[in-house]
Amino acid sequence: MVSPLFSASGHLVAIGGAEDKTSDLEILKKVFSLAPEGNQEVAVIATASSIPDEVLPDYEAAFSRLGASRIHSLGIRDRQEAADANTVRLIEQSGVIFLTGGDQLRLTHVLGGSPVLTAIRQRLEDGAVVAGTSAGAAAMPCTMIYNGAAADALRKGAVNMTFGLSFIDDLIIDSHFLERGRFTRLMEVGASNPEHLGVGLGEDAGVIIHPHGILEAIGTGHVILIDSLDLASSNIADLEMGEPVAVEHMILHALVSGNGFDVEARRYLVADELQAMLAGRVGQ
Amino acid sequence: MVSPLFSASGHLVAIGGAEDKTSDLEILKKVFSLAPEGNQEVAVIATASSIPDEVLPDYEAAFSRLGASRIHSLGIRDRQEAADANTVRLIEQSGVIFLTGGDQLRLTHVLGGSPVLTAIRQRLEDGAVVAGTSAGAAAMPCTMIYNGAAADALRKGAVNMTFGLSFIDDLIIDSHFLERGRFTRLMEVGASNPEHLGVGLGEDAGVIIHPHGILEAIGTGHVILIDSLDLASSNIADLEMGEPVAVEHMILHALVSGNGFDVEARRYLVADELQAMLAGRVGQ
Repeated sequence: MVSPLFSASGHLVAIGGAEDKTSDLEILKKVFSLAPEGNQEVAVIATASSIPDEVLPDYEAAFSRLGASRIHSLGIRDRQEAADANTVRLIEQSGVIFLTGGDQLRLTHVLGGSPVLTAIRQRLEDGAVVAGTSAGAAAMPCTMIYNGAAADALRKGAVNMTFGLSFIDDLIIDSHFLERGRFTRLMEVGASNPEHLGVGLGEDAGVIIHPHGILEAIGTGHVILIDSLDLASSNIADLEMGEPVAVEHMILHALVSGNGFDVEARRYLVADELQAMLAGRVGQ
Repeated sequence: MVSPLFSASGHLVAIGGAEDKTSDLEILKKVFSLAPEGNQEVAVIATASSIPDEVLPDYEAAFSRLGASRIHSLGIRDRQEAADANTVRLIEQSGVIFLTGGDQLRLTHVLGGSPVLTAIRQRLEDGAVVAGTSAGAAAMPCTMIYNGAAADALRKGAVNMTFGLSFIDDLIIDSHFLERGRFTRLMEVGASNPEHLGVGLGEDAGVIIHPHGILEAIGTGHVILIDSLDLASSNIADLEMGEPVAVEHMILHALVSGNGFDVEARRYLVADELQAMLAGRVGQ
């Protein structure tokens, strides 16, 4: 949608799951702080979750603590609800739109091509913050992973992918990344097409995706980047399904809170560089 | 022991665990084939294992199928047994010395500084093959990992290390690597000292370490290499214990059976290059 590089007025925040919702709220506080000035209305969309009634109250409590003026808890269970005019209206008036965890395939199946999704994209263009955790983060790119055995996903066909919500084109996002040992999933994706930067989000960790494709790591965990752009060789095109994939030369980074990355330049940014970049970038 | 690069006459074979012992025996067959000509006597050392009586018969059966002339099943439970003259003699006459899985700390605690260990090193110098699986592989370098939560080991101090068996200096070896999601362990080690190549062995996968530090991947799984030599930056020296480690620029490779790696040149070798290298290397 926003090719070649993320250029909406608003911010995307992708979170690896299990973000703190009851203590310091570090990540949710950051999400809330990115709302457009004067709009502290929050829409929480629990479509991905199979237990929305358990998930939504936690976010209501957290965003309430942070000072939200109104919180819209939206289950959006099916495609009919994803076309509901009142739901669309609530999204259109929200400054923060938050996608919960669960199953990213449920999220795309219900929201794909819907008026609700169109409204979310428009809010992002217009300056709202769109945040998602776990499934809600994985679904953000144009293509997403929805399944793949972590034990050894570096086998041809082991990772199942389909269209995501197309909030951003340049990344592939995986969540619970360190905790579930998902390095091989992004390695298989990188071997299949080295163009898209692999972003592996740890739990209670996330990235703010600033306009112009500047990533900023937040939270107490890690953000792992697997950059396959300079991949030298792989056997992937010659294999039968299930055979092990060889990979020559991917680049690995680990970001912690305060570090950043310039997706276009493929450049790691230590804290000072990130701050300078964010301060100056609008004019570049 | 064999610094700067592995230069013994014999071969080391490091295996990631769970190698096939009952079907095609692909890896064990390769190990057995590396025995010096005319010596098909095998010593299996189960020191690492807490259940040697369960482990040893599987290897007896496998090496017997492969044509071993004699198989010495050696429990070596304590330091007294590690000094036993008869045990030393059996090792001295074996062409294949195999270290089972279990706990690498038990292995080093029992064998460290013992006559048995001295005998194994001498056999390696003289042309025998020394192979180890799981704990038996992890213990091979001069420094080894013996503990570290896989969930997120990229935190200062999360990986516990100590002296290994010093069969090779230039590597750090981890086993069950993909199956247990251990990427972050080798990343922490690489951040703490970027000099030593990280070798992450998957299950039913291994590397033959040829003289002059040429690695050859074998088995049905993956060998992951994490090369930190060109690490650009890390915060590790500035952190408190437990804080998350940032890492800028490590190089990641995945080898499958037939691929190789030149440790000194830090060069990935596709199958043709590996074979040319192995054929020509002696004369270089």
